[in-house]
Amino acid sequence: MTAPTSPIVIGYLGPVGTYAEAAATGYAQWRSTREPFPAELCPYPSIAQTLEAVASGEVPLVVVPVENSIQGSVTTTLDTLWQLDGLQVQQAIVLPIAHVLISQAADFAAITTVYSHPQALAQCQHWIETHLPNAQATPTNSTTEALINVQGQPQAAAISSERAAMLYDLPVLARQISDCPENCTRFWAIARQPTHQDGSHTAIAFSTINNPGSLLKPLATLASRDINLCRIESRPSKRGLGDYVFFLDLEAGQQESRTQAALQELRDRVEILKVFGSYDALALT
Amino acid sequence: MTAPTSPIVIGYLGPVGTYAEAAATGYAQWRSTREPFPAELCPYPSIAQTLEAVASGEVPLVVVPVENSIQGSVTTTLDTLWQLDGLQVQQAIVLPIAHVLISQAADFAAITTVYSHPQALAQCQHWIETHLPNAQATPTNSTTEALINVQGQPQAAAISSERAAMLYDLPVLARQISDCPENCTRFWAIARQPTHQDGSHTAIAFSTINNPGSLLKPLATLASRDINLCRIESRPSKRGLGDYVFFLDLEAGQQESRTQAALQELRDRVEILKVFGSYDALALT
Repeated sequence: MTAPTSPIVIGYLGPVGTYAEAAATGYAQWRSTREPFPAELCPYPSIAQTLEAVASGEVPLVVVPVENSIQGSVTTTLDTLWQLDGLQVQQAIVLPIAHVLISQAADFAAITTVYSHPQALAQCQHWIETHLPNAQATPTNSTTEALINVQGQPQAAAISSERAAMLYDLPVLARQISDCPENCTRFWAIARQPTHQDGSHTAIAFSTINNPGSLLKPLATLASRDINLCRIESRPSKRGLGDYVFFLDLEAGQQESRTQAALQELRDRVEILKVFGSYDALALT
Repeated sequence: MTAPTSPIVIGYLGPVGTYAEAAATGYAQWRSTREPFPAELCPYPSIAQTLEAVASGEVPLVVVPVENSIQGSVTTTLDTLWQLDGLQVQQAIVLPIAHVLISQAADFAAITTVYSHPQALAQCQHWIETHLPNAQATPTNSTTEALINVQGQPQAAAISSERAAMLYDLPVLARQISDCPENCTRFWAIARQPTHQDGSHTAIAFSTINNPGSLLKPLATLASRDINLCRIESRPSKRGLGDYVFFLDLEAGQQESRTQAALQELRDRVEILKVFGSYDALALT
């Protein structure tokens, strides 16, 4: 008989009903098919606070959004990862995003305001312009916060998930309202300990001394070892215009000898190098 | 005696009093020191509509924001440039951003809501948390739209420029409220005709067929010719997660022979290549 295990707390961008919660739940379920994984979810009010909670040791694991297939990078996640120390990506989690229109209105014509997170509003912009031409798009801090504005207000609508509508017991007025049918968000599960390093992709970031050729040399280091980038993103270093931190996803595992050699050489060619670990992708349905 | 010249209409993200208007005004003044340049400004309600106005021939020239030294790329500008055809960057314009707090409140304690464009709110986030801990940060479509919410409402404040406060005849309650003192925005002046191509930087973008190594080869093309990138940005192609359009600023003029050779080779190594022309930077004060 083994001792009862206390649950592993997973932080995420709350409140209950957000897409981040769905990603965290899917990740915990997948982990529990491989090993005992008693999980408990803990919502945080912002992405920065979620990442600070794992960096400070308040929770052992968090799930945060990294990029959306329509809107691109979640820049707060990248900027906060750069500022905090010692965080390691454990797993990528790809979640299909299926927005629905939630409202107690009798029909579209009665709706004067549509609430949602700015990314969700942007992803449904053409649908809103076509079907709700007179409604005002109003940003909220999360897709779930939008629902709170809808309760008891039949002139208001929210864009959120089918699951959130069910959790908050609100009616769905329209489905498939996203402008691009292929809409997914990639999340990262992040902890303090290093990964097993056997993932197929490696996430790194570096700053350079701002002078001519400063990005060329690090890229040549990777190119000369046939390491492809699946993504490269410039984020402002906040030291001045034209001074960047570069975020790269390498199509190579951290333990591969070409990666080890490239990282060794990179340290001499950049100002600060951060290696966020290796990961594989888990596709949720 | 020469015939009177009709004014050149410059489109920008309005209304009157935005930073985009200040950049457009500064650019027109600079042009008029070099040649006869009778300019008239024309505000548009969004960045996409501003760029569509020049693409369709409605106006000959527009000024749009490209990136901020704290918040990074203005993704709407990049995405719209990729979608539209035949637009050419004429000039980069760097404008220092000096946010001020505008309100008819007697003191900070009376303020319950702070209105501004989401980028301006983000740039002053720590200042707001410190000086207005109980105020709700509420996004608006432009820094100028924020001012309209302040008129006659002493519990409201707006973040905008000193110039906008003057134009709308509203009092400035606090200055130097940006979290990073070094805060500038880079704009591009864009027209349909090609530039003289003698600028020191060249802006390009390309999409790749999504397969391993697809970004490596184009980057190797540039590296082998010692062409440094000052910036590289991945934007979703909107065809699916992991499928990107890459935006690059090259530290090389379009007419240089190494650039010509690299662009020639790039055409065979990417799916679609767009060259947005060469430009120099104009620093406004």
